[in-house]
Amino acid sequence: MTEPIAMIAVDWGTTNRRAWALGRDGKVLAERQDGEGLLQVKPQGFARSFADFAALWLTRGERLPVLMCGMVGSKLGWTEAPYIAAPADLSGLARHLHPVPFAGDARIVIVPGVSAIDRGVPDVMRGEECQVLAVMAQRRLRDATLLLPGTHSKWVQVADGKLVSFRTYMTGELYNALTSSGTLAQLMEKGEADGEAFLRGLRQVRDEGSGALTHLLFGVRTLGLFDLMPRASLSTYLSGLLIGAEMTDAVAWSGAKQMIAVGSPKLLENYRRAADFFGLAFEAHDNSALLPPALHMIARDSGLVA
Amino acid sequence: MTEPIAMIAVDWGTTNRRAWALGRDGKVLAERQDGEGLLQVKPQGFARSFADFAALWLTRGERLPVLMCGMVGSKLGWTEAPYIAAPADLSGLARHLHPVPFAGDARIVIVPGVSAIDRGVPDVMRGEECQVLAVMAQRRLRDATLLLPGTHSKWVQVADGKLVSFRTYMTGELYNALTSSGTLAQLMEKGEADGEAFLRGLRQVRDEGSGALTHLLFGVRTLGLFDLMPRASLSTYLSGLLIGAEMTDAVAWSGAKQMIAVGSPKLLENYRRAADFFGLAFEAHDNSALLPPALHMIARDSGLVA
Repeated sequence: MTEPIAMIAVDWGTTNRRAWALGRDGKVLAERQDGEGLLQVKPQGFARSFADFAALWLTRGERLPVLMCGMVGSKLGWTEAPYIAAPADLSGLARHLHPVPFAGDARIVIVPGVSAIDRGVPDVMRGEECQVLAVMAQRRLRDATLLLPGTHSKWVQVADGKLVSFRTYMTGELYNALTSSGTLAQLMEKGEADGEAFLRGLRQVRDEGSGALTHLLFGVRTLGLFDLMPRASLSTYLSGLLIGAEMTDAVAWSGAKQMIAVGSPKLLENYRRAADFFGLAFEAHDNSALLPPALHMIARDSGLVA
Repeated sequence: MTEPIAMIAVDWGTTNRRAWALGRDGKVLAERQDGEGLLQVKPQGFARSFADFAALWLTRGERLPVLMCGMVGSKLGWTEAPYIAAPADLSGLARHLHPVPFAGDARIVIVPGVSAIDRGVPDVMRGEECQVLAVMAQRRLRDATLLLPGTHSKWVQVADGKLVSFRTYMTGELYNALTSSGTLAQLMEKGEADGEAFLRGLRQVRDEGSGALTHLLFGVRTLGLFDLMPRASLSTYLSGLLIGAEMTDAVAWSGAKQMIAVGSPKLLENYRRAADFFGLAFEAHDNSALLPPALHMIARDSGLVA
């Protein structure tokens, strides 16, 4: 006899979405993902898109609890779930769930994102707050500096169980932009990641300072032009510069000597090498394993499931 | 009676070219420009392209002296004029002119670019060295820190008449990339330059440090998302961040408290405001007025013209 589905957890982002059918104790019973991120769904199409996506797990007439996180709660998403402001009690996320009007066989709520303000300039996260909650709970910690690398990398300070402050770095987006067009991309060739080139990028940042980044970027071009680095290694060197600059600034900002990193194993590997290079302790967690228990915990704390 | 043409001076760049017909004393007798930069000319097409461009000024059977500078002397140009290495005597540029094989009615030579190396990473300029020579001669200076803003901004140290070292910053190219696509460009709207937004960008860099740049860039997005800055002002704010980061690092590198800036009046205006903000003395020179006398001086020193 199969265990009944107690709730559905969803991470609905800009380019992808993933969902997990969870049992009563949070056990993952089934999982699915597709490419129907916000960019693929029409403004009025979220209800239909979700109903199709989750059809196999829904039962006519039963309003199954569904907890969503990620960009689905943004202005461009299904329904805007207002940010809660840092400092924010992580255990308080469950008290700020935002209901989504849905006529189908589900009771849908969205986890709010978190905003912070620094010298009048806001910063925002959506989805990362759940990963922070999950890893802090799993590690039974109340204080930590966390790193969530990605297109927009986040560095997060948690103190006494509160998400106190955070900083976003455009590392991944800059990498994508500079490797896809412009005078650096022109010289790049496809190739294996080159560990030596990555370290050389980190060394440049250490020696010249992250403040020299827009100068150091030009070196990607000249190293290629003068044949001082294989053209297939230039993108790895660029990655070393960008990750080096991010880590240097984030460590200066946070004062952290150790960090808990949450992300895809492939991305984390580069950050681990950078942390080693800068003499920082690094603990890695695969993000895909963290979200289902986090969303289950929030659902339970909020009373969405028993 | 019209004065005869003694030489032609040419600035042939990646996207544009300009030429001046000069009299015996260097006086500009005529000028022309078009969009036939390196990108528009086929590898074997430079001789024909030049002959057409200068046809009105050339006389059959006479080998008129022509001095060229800029990317025309690069690997992708007409003929590669090897870089001379910094520290380089500015008055020595005339001894390193590179001849171009040309069967038409002109004797063509190209001014070499200058290269430098810093911790194993090269830096390069082509064309800027002539502007540096020109402004130093005009101002009768032997020591200065110079700024040549553009797609790839250059900061140049001249000591005792030698171009000692320099740094390139990818400021203009990053601005173009981030305003044309990606998550910042998405939010931008066309509008007048907003002086307040520019200053706010500079302030952010001063307060957070140029090392925080890849974090501060994300603020362009959030200020727009939260309607804390008009969307038509976001590109000016971005410009403040990028120019602020460039100037902060370049001043730390050079130790300069004053600079001589050479460029287009429009670009110089933003740099002047940044220099004012950071409390630095700023002297501006329009680059379009400087090249003809510089190239005439080099032609005379080299014996290309009497």
